[in-house]
Amino acid sequence: MTLRPDLTALWLTMQTQACSCNDPLIQDVYATNIGDHASFPSALASLIGTKLADRSIPATTLTRLVTAIFADNPAIPHEAAADILAIQERDPACTDLVTPFLFFKGWQALQAYRVANSLWHQDRKHLAYHIQSRCNELFAIDIHPAARIGQRVSFDHGTGIVIGETCIIEDDVALFQSVTLGGTGKLSGDRHPIVRQGAMIGAGAKILGRITIGEHARIGAASVVLENIPAGSTAVGNPARIIRHNNDKNEII
Amino acid sequence: MTLRPDLTALWLTMQTQACSCNDPLIQDVYATNIGDHASFPSALASLIGTKLADRSIPATTLTRLVTAIFADNPAIPHEAAADILAIQERDPACTDLVTPFLFFKGWQALQAYRVANSLWHQDRKHLAYHIQSRCNELFAIDIHPAARIGQRVSFDHGTGIVIGETCIIEDDVALFQSVTLGGTGKLSGDRHPIVRQGAMIGAGAKILGRITIGEHARIGAASVVLENIPAGSTAVGNPARIIRHNNDKNEII
Amino acid sequence: MTLRPDLTALWLTMQTQACSCNDPLIQDVYATNIGDHASFPSALASLIGTKLADRSIPATTLTRLVTAIFADNPAIPHEAAADILAIQERDPACTDLVTPFLFFKGWQALQAYRVANSLWHQDRKHLAYHIQSRCNELFAIDIHPAARIGQRVSFDHGTGIVIGETCIIEDDVALFQSVTLGGTGKLSGDRHPIVRQGAMIGAGAKILGRITIGEHARIGAASVVLENIPAGSTAVGNPARIIRHNNDKNEII
Amino acid sequence: MTLRPDLTALWLTMQTQACSCNDPLIQDVYATNIGDHASFPSALASLIGTKLADRSIPATTLTRLVTAIFADNPAIPHEAAADILAIQERDPACTDLVTPFLFFKGWQALQAYRVANSLWHQDRKHLAYHIQSRCNELFAIDIHPAARIGQRVSFDHGTGIVIGETCIIEDDVALFQSVTLGGTGKLSGDRHPIVRQGAMIGAGAKILGRITIGEHARIGAASVVLENIPAGSTAVGNPARIIRHNNDKNEII
Amino acid sequence: MTLRPDLTALWLTMQTQACSCNDPLIQDVYATNIGDHASFPSALASLIGTKLADRSIPATTLTRLVTAIFADNPAIPHEAAADILAIQERDPACTDLVTPFLFFKGWQALQAYRVANSLWHQDRKHLAYHIQSRCNELFAIDIHPAARIGQRVSFDHGTGIVIGETCIIEDDVALFQSVTLGGTGKLSGDRHPIVRQGAMIGAGAKILGRITIGEHARIGAASVVLENIPAGSTAVGNPARIIRHNNDKNEII
Amino acid sequence: MTLRPDLTALWLTMQTQACSCNDPLIQDVYATNIGDHASFPSALASLIGTKLADRSIPATTLTRLVTAIFADNPAIPHEAAADILAIQERDPACTDLVTPFLFFKGWQALQAYRVANSLWHQDRKHLAYHIQSRCNELFAIDIHPAARIGQRVSFDHGTGIVIGETCIIEDDVALFQSVTLGGTGKLSGDRHPIVRQGAMIGAGAKILGRITIGEHARIGAASVVLENIPAGSTAVGNPARIIRHNNDKNEII
Repeated sequence: MTLRPDLTALWLTMQTQACSCNDPLIQDVYATNIGDHASFPSALASLIGTKLADRSIPATTLTRLVTAIFADNPAIPHEAAADILAIQERDPACTDLVTPFLFFKGWQALQAYRVANSLWHQDRKHLAYHIQSRCNELFAIDIHPAARIGQRVSFDHGTGIVIGETCIIEDDVALFQSVTLGGTGKLSGDRHPIVRQGAMIGAGAKILGRITIGEHARIGAASVVLENIPAGSTAVGNPARIIRHNNDKNEII
Repeated sequence: MTLRPDLTALWLTMQTQACSCNDPLIQDVYATNIGDHASFPSALASLIGTKLADRSIPATTLTRLVTAIFADNPAIPHEAAADILAIQERDPACTDLVTPFLFFKGWQALQAYRVANSLWHQDRKHLAYHIQSRCNELFAIDIHPAARIGQRVSFDHGTGIVIGETCIIEDDVALFQSVTLGGTGKLSGDRHPIVRQGAMIGAGAKILGRITIGEHARIGAASVVLENIPAGSTAVGNPARIIRHNNDKNEII
Repeated sequence: MTLRPDLTALWLTMQTQACSCNDPLIQDVYATNIGDHASFPSALASLIGTKLADRSIPATTLTRLVTAIFADNPAIPHEAAADILAIQERDPACTDLVTPFLFFKGWQALQAYRVANSLWHQDRKHLAYHIQSRCNELFAIDIHPAARIGQRVSFDHGTGIVIGETCIIEDDVALFQSVTLGGTGKLSGDRHPIVRQGAMIGAGAKILGRITIGEHARIGAASVVLENIPAGSTAVGNPARIIRHNNDKNEII
Repeated sequence: MTLRPDLTALWLTMQTQACSCNDPLIQDVYATNIGDHASFPSALASLIGTKLADRSIPATTLTRLVTAIFADNPAIPHEAAADILAIQERDPACTDLVTPFLFFKGWQALQAYRVANSLWHQDRKHLAYHIQSRCNELFAIDIHPAARIGQRVSFDHGTGIVIGETCIIEDDVALFQSVTLGGTGKLSGDRHPIVRQGAMIGAGAKILGRITIGEHARIGAASVVLENIPAGSTAVGNPARIIRHNNDKNEII
Repeated sequence: MTLRPDLTALWLTMQTQACSCNDPLIQDVYATNIGDHASFPSALASLIGTKLADRSIPATTLTRLVTAIFADNPAIPHEAAADILAIQERDPACTDLVTPFLFFKGWQALQAYRVANSLWHQDRKHLAYHIQSRCNELFAIDIHPAARIGQRVSFDHGTGIVIGETCIIEDDVALFQSVTLGGTGKLSGDRHPIVRQGAMIGAGAKILGRITIGEHARIGAASVVLENIPAGSTAVGNPARIIRHNNDKNEII
Repeated sequence: MTLRPDLTALWLTMQTQACSCNDPLIQDVYATNIGDHASFPSALASLIGTKLADRSIPATTLTRLVTAIFADNPAIPHEAAADILAIQERDPACTDLVTPFLFFKGWQALQAYRVANSLWHQDRKHLAYHIQSRCNELFAIDIHPAARIGQRVSFDHGTGIVIGETCIIEDDVALFQSVTLGGTGKLSGDRHPIVRQGAMIGAGAKILGRITIGEHARIGAASVVLENIPAGSTAVGNPARIIRHNNDKNEII
């Protein structure tokens, strides 16, 4: 799980999958976004650049920016690939790799965040905010560029996800639509949640304050969590209470 | 309620309503989208084609695709008309038919789903996914094209609605914003809810798993429902509990 | 708090902040939207006009409409300025005034509502609906143009906020993402909540019916509120119950 | 020749021709511009509106303007039809009616002029200048809206044609690319040429001043004409001299 | 004639003229391009930036570039104003100042050249070529950025004008459509014409090689000039011959 | 001269030239159109697809069409490269290869013709006409797709060039702006000129009818040629007369 995905093999698979689309109305979308690119990073840079373009910054400029970011941070495309593989594993409605690439805005927003995060650490904060804002307009997903997010992470359906400035999301976390990882009253410093490896947070759950959701913990849909949740446990309700202590990590709530 | 709406009469009414708009800044919007079309299906095809167009597939191409789908599935415009009439009945803020047609993204997304569903059953799944994805970008409404949805259905306000692959939504159902009809752990097969005729599901409610919301049942806002809800009953809370057993179907929670 | 902000001083500050952006990829965004404008109202009209433009009404036409609205209602830019100052006070992640102006869709949607509300009272309802609808498409925020909203109001993150036709929101209210201020069964007349001065409503809370959230009351995230909440108290849960009666107004839940 | 074309029959022919296009990349262009329209005037209004749209006036607004002009001036679509039939007769490279409609900018510019001319006579001169200017940008053809132009007129290839304010062009005239019908020193009043019925003016010819090119006269390519040319004669050269006096009207130079 | 125009007075006149446009379809074009601008240079920068924008460089970026050029070269807006005043004097079809500003592509192309020329002398040749190329696409006017052009110059109708790299055009020159000021065989160095003050060159004339068209000389339409033409004389024909030696400078051929 | 250019070496040179552009406003144009492409054919397909896109056929679709044409006709990119090398040789104002590629519309239109010609011979005439028409709109250059054109051909400045259906243009021909290779009276069959290898036709010349311009012949600007011109001779005037019989092929008129 922590091995870097083999981007060459992944890309070969994705190109084969893209080629199988022969519907005349849509095959150009597959070909232009996947088939025509020599590599996964090239296709990803173009996808992000094209999606986030608006009348102030054209697609070509953004694509080149993302390409440059990838050159400085070659880990980003590997993380993006790991994310896409994780989606395929977890989502029974997803049977290939090209569908999330082209059509899952949760995955696309996560990759745009990775670019914004990289800009943030280069102290290009104005541009990082712009990308955050475009994601919030286009995808209705609001991720602060300073948040820290691991890999093999999925944002299923995506609409309404909010992730605050000092959040830490470790590897293998699954967030569903309308999850908030937000603050409470604290006005500065670390004030947003830590979500440990393998945790799953159900649709609409609100996790608030500098609390920790433990490894492989599960938070039920629409739960409101204001306190730490131990590793391997399941919490549900508003306010959330723990209903189970030893999650089987292969199960999904 | 199960009669097919008379599209000719409906269209005459809508054209009359559209004509009453004489604000110079907006009357072209009414005229172009309604007044200039000879029929409701023609106007609907143009509306969907124009809304979902992006830089990869132009409005004219999508409009023609929808027109062809309507030719193969003449029931779709009738269902769309039934949906719009249901909105007018249910929504006190809506006093005509042209306002939901032009301005209610919940209704627009539902009609786009009807097109995607038709493509899905023609085994044009790539194109169906594209339409689903454009709806999720533009409207922040995510409906799997394989879901089954009846008529006289309304998606009020719309943002954040998620409807999974194996959902069944019968006629006369009302969903409010941010409702999830999602899965739980089951990885394949029928794993999303069935919502029976006349049920109403309040804003932010999460209905999860292959459970049934019975006829004319009502689910309160932000409820989390993991078990069957009998017909005619009202359930609220997280987790939801039944608080009433004989709903008057003319009431709204 | 009730003093009108000094727009000249505010604008000078914002122009200075905008000038500090010297990232070649983004500085034109700051310059075009802020630096080039002689006044805050001019910049705001241009921002709203450009954001809400689509292929039916061009940016230039909308900008001029907003400019004319501001000429008739000079209070609107003052309210917009008051809102932006309130964000800066409340949001620890926001350290300047130009970031919310350019990048916070909650603030942008609120200002677009102010324009739609003004059109509504001029009996230009078609145009008011169009602006409401464009906000719901672009920002995923749905505010009925007839709602009444005060100043120093913030819509943090924004996605999914729904505000009904007869709502009243007083000054200094903070709403978070996915809050619904909606109706219940009543089909006409005053049927949406009143939110008194200084109240705070957490993410995902559903406030339903003609109830009153008292001054400086706090509603916890994902709460469902169907009854009046007294001034100065805190309510949480689904259904909400009051857990505290004397909120310190300088605290935030 | 002076009979009004039967627009119904013409439209049936054009629709049949458009249907024969089954190239997947281009058939939507034929269908959208021709196949989907119920009548020749409807298709023509849409074509002009779409071609002349820019970021200041959208296609829908211009299309509706042209539709209204046609309602006031039903002769315009008949003249446009007469022009297209004349092209088919004269141009050996043109074997159908849909090719000039969709692809010949000379014909398109002439129809746009007819709209501008109608606006001019309604004293909507600002709008008439706008259409003239858009034609000059898009087609590189500059026709003053006050000029008077008959029917069965063709502008072959089109680039560079200039027609001054007081020109009179009668029926059945053929102008080729880069023809100028311009003024000389006279600063006001009638100062541009009169081109009588059936005259043909070759590519690049400059006809200057209030002179008359007689019926069925022919002006050779690149000629410079500063004096009247009698009916039925042929003039060539710089300055032009008459080389023949009895043109056979079925011949073309 | 050599006084710098008073831009403040000019702008006041233009704003008054723009205000007189009250046609609802077009008045926003006048207001946005003229009425809303505080000064002539501001309006001109916006006009050029908007006209030359394409999908590679947005309007806002180009507008700011032009604004910066004007700050470095305040003479440019004065020359542009002088050009527009000259058009009004010379062109009997032009009775105000706003019509050429908004609608005469010859004047617009000349001002775009002035910007490209300024970039050329700052050694920003790539950008200068881009502006030249956009002018040639949009206006069909091709002016090498290294050419030298004075003020009170007019390019009537504009299509097809070509001005080579080493041309010198002095003040008060009038060029008509399709004029070429080109080279002959010489492969480097000064190889294009010099056109002295007050000369007039008719439509389609070709002036080739390092020759001089003298002060107040007139070249007839479609003339081909390969040798010097003395001041005050008139030349016509292909090849051109001198037909008059003492032009009255108030006459126009 | 008849050797196929080495596209790999050419591309390496062009990439080096593109890299030397470091003006922040324009370097993305160079990078996107040249630097980012792995080969000359890839960049050329993208350039043509992007230039000719309009609201009916998107850039991605056209780019893929051109790519497919190049796969079937690998000679086309070689001819395009030969053309660009010829421009560099002939045009003293052109000192590199990337300037004509990006900015010379004559060269761009010629390559678009090559694509349209290929479509014509595949009997995809509708699409061929569409490309011809887009060239005539965008570049003001009208080349019939059935014309036959060799390589090392240049269209300097370009505006107004018209090339008829049965024209034959051999290798090494140079046409200047506003040249017409047109027909006279003959209504069908071969009716347009043949221009033999190495001929040069000056700006505005009109060559009409099935005549032959011999090898290395030169036609003066604005000449009107209605009869054969022998190889190696120079013709000028209206009508053209031969003024020289032994052109030195290294000279340019």
